[in-house]
Amino acid sequence: MNFNQVTIIGFGLIGSSIARVLRRDCPAVRIVCGDSSLDVCKKALELGIANSASTDLAEAVQGSDLVVLAVPVGACGGVAEAMAPGLKQGAVVTDVGSVKQAVIASVKRHLPDYVDFVPAHPIAGTEHSGPEAGFAELFQGRWAIITPLPETPLNAIETVTALWESAGSNVEFMEPRRHDLVLAITSHLPHLIAYTIVGTASDLEDHLKADVIKFSASGFRDFTRIAASDPVMWRDIFINNQEAVLEIVQRFTEDLTGLQRAIRWGDGRVLQDMFARTRAIRRQIIDAKQADYRYPNQLSALVPQPEALRKASGS
Amino acid sequence: MNFNQVTIIGFGLIGSSIARVLRRDCPAVRIVCGDSSLDVCKKALELGIANSASTDLAEAVQGSDLVVLAVPVGACGGVAEAMAPGLKQGAVVTDVGSVKQAVIASVKRHLPDYVDFVPAHPIAGTEHSGPEAGFAELFQGRWAIITPLPETPLNAIETVTALWESAGSNVEFMEPRRHDLVLAITSHLPHLIAYTIVGTASDLEDHLKADVIKFSASGFRDFTRIAASDPVMWRDIFINNQEAVLEIVQRFTEDLTGLQRAIRWGDGRVLQDMFARTRAIRRQIIDAKQADYRYPNQLSALVPQPEALRKASGS
Repeated sequence: MNFNQVTIIGFGLIGSSIARVLRRDCPAVRIVCGDSSLDVCKKALELGIANSASTDLAEAVQGSDLVVLAVPVGACGGVAEAMAPGLKQGAVVTDVGSVKQAVIASVKRHLPDYVDFVPAHPIAGTEHSGPEAGFAELFQGRWAIITPLPETPLNAIETVTALWESAGSNVEFMEPRRHDLVLAITSHLPHLIAYTIVGTASDLEDHLKADVIKFSASGFRDFTRIAASDPVMWRDIFINNQEAVLEIVQRFTEDLTGLQRAIRWGDGRVLQDMFARTRAIRRQIIDAKQADYRYPNQLSALVPQPEALRKASGS
Repeated sequence: MNFNQVTIIGFGLIGSSIARVLRRDCPAVRIVCGDSSLDVCKKALELGIANSASTDLAEAVQGSDLVVLAVPVGACGGVAEAMAPGLKQGAVVTDVGSVKQAVIASVKRHLPDYVDFVPAHPIAGTEHSGPEAGFAELFQGRWAIITPLPETPLNAIETVTALWESAGSNVEFMEPRRHDLVLAITSHLPHLIAYTIVGTASDLEDHLKADVIKFSASGFRDFTRIAASDPVMWRDIFINNQEAVLEIVQRFTEDLTGLQRAIRWGDGRVLQDMFARTRAIRRQIIDAKQADYRYPNQLSALVPQPEALRKASGS
């Protein structure tokens, strides 16, 4: 990576993790934090993962070879507009958003033609937020999808590829439209469903809710981790990938209605056939090395027990 | 535990794990495997976790002090009927089903009045099935819910309590009706939703499905493990807890429709408020020590990476 200075706008989980990758791999690079929150700017300096910080985004990008937008997707357009006057000739601008078409539409029109935009999306995260939640290993072994524009020059694509490879990610190239559809299925729908089910439980009468929390390990708990993800980030994702999300929610609802009907009429055949099919998908994911096949005595990893968990988290 | 002989009917994941607990804790106890599958009977003997085995259930229960039904909930009535003639006077009969009211109704009427029935439900499992998938630690640190009948004598309840305490479980007592409602929310609905979402994905066009598997770590993967659970077991659970499941599915669907509408109309406030509420529920589960709060550098535990996973599973 051949940068003198990199600006990261938005020093949350993702932005601060990228800063930590740069600190680790390119200690000579100057890192500038641009964030609308003065507290976050201070924290970035305090943590030693930025050399300077500013809430003025045009100032923050001045002189930077690479600018990374790591803000919620709904904020990308406004950030691009605000920083544009400060962008250096030949700078590469990239982002990390979970939606590509809407971000491209909102960012591109604000950028001067002497900078290059490379839309990207590292598929990584935790349910924690903020500059302290980041860590350099976040992207290790994960996918980073780059969705180049027809006009993006090869060297700009290579710059962003180098960043993600340095972070330990496997880089993939995709069309923006396809990215948004695939992510609607693999990420946005699962999050929407998890938010819904946890919301449904949170509306229960108090005495029932206490038991739901107590016995959450029987399935519910798996959904609560996902449903603890950043609210603003996810609000923006759903609204900005509206078309693909609504299409896939519609399919999901039809399928759920079918199962609901089978339960009401006691149609065991429909249920059993469906459940046998879904088991096969798990097998394919294991075969694709995206999950493992744990077996006897691997239980503590499979269904974490409170004691083991406390040990694992070092508390 | 004061048994000479225990019969376990159904030597799958749960039944064979109970056998392993007994082998470990009461090596003098004779274990009888009752299973309608001759292959499973042979396997139980081969694994050394049963002293004898029979596909004739009345024969299998003869002389046993404790009989554990570890078959899918829809099979409990038929099993009770088949084994009844062989039951010894004063025997304790228990089960492990995830539904209690329907099992009580179907089992009780077949049992002679000289045996005692103690309905129970260990909240434990993996997505694997069969006698080889079991292990003695399966129940360690997990809940075991006992839902005694008004006529169940205390000593029979104590017998079943001792079994689960020996397995390392925390025993709780509950009314059958409440059990079925709480489990509908914490376990049955999450499983139904996971089955649905994985089913929706499995209906996608092939080229899209390949990408869904490839990028499954972005949320979808968490659902596939749950949706790989035993198809017959889950078919029976949904059909036998129909009322509670349909009630909670109805609430879920209403809530999902509300979010769908907010996405369509771009109503970010509704989404963000909801997502902030669900984050609070996660916090309560962590406070209740039913999940941990992993933080930076605990990522390998949080979002398993293929390499780490292969190591963990020892392959």
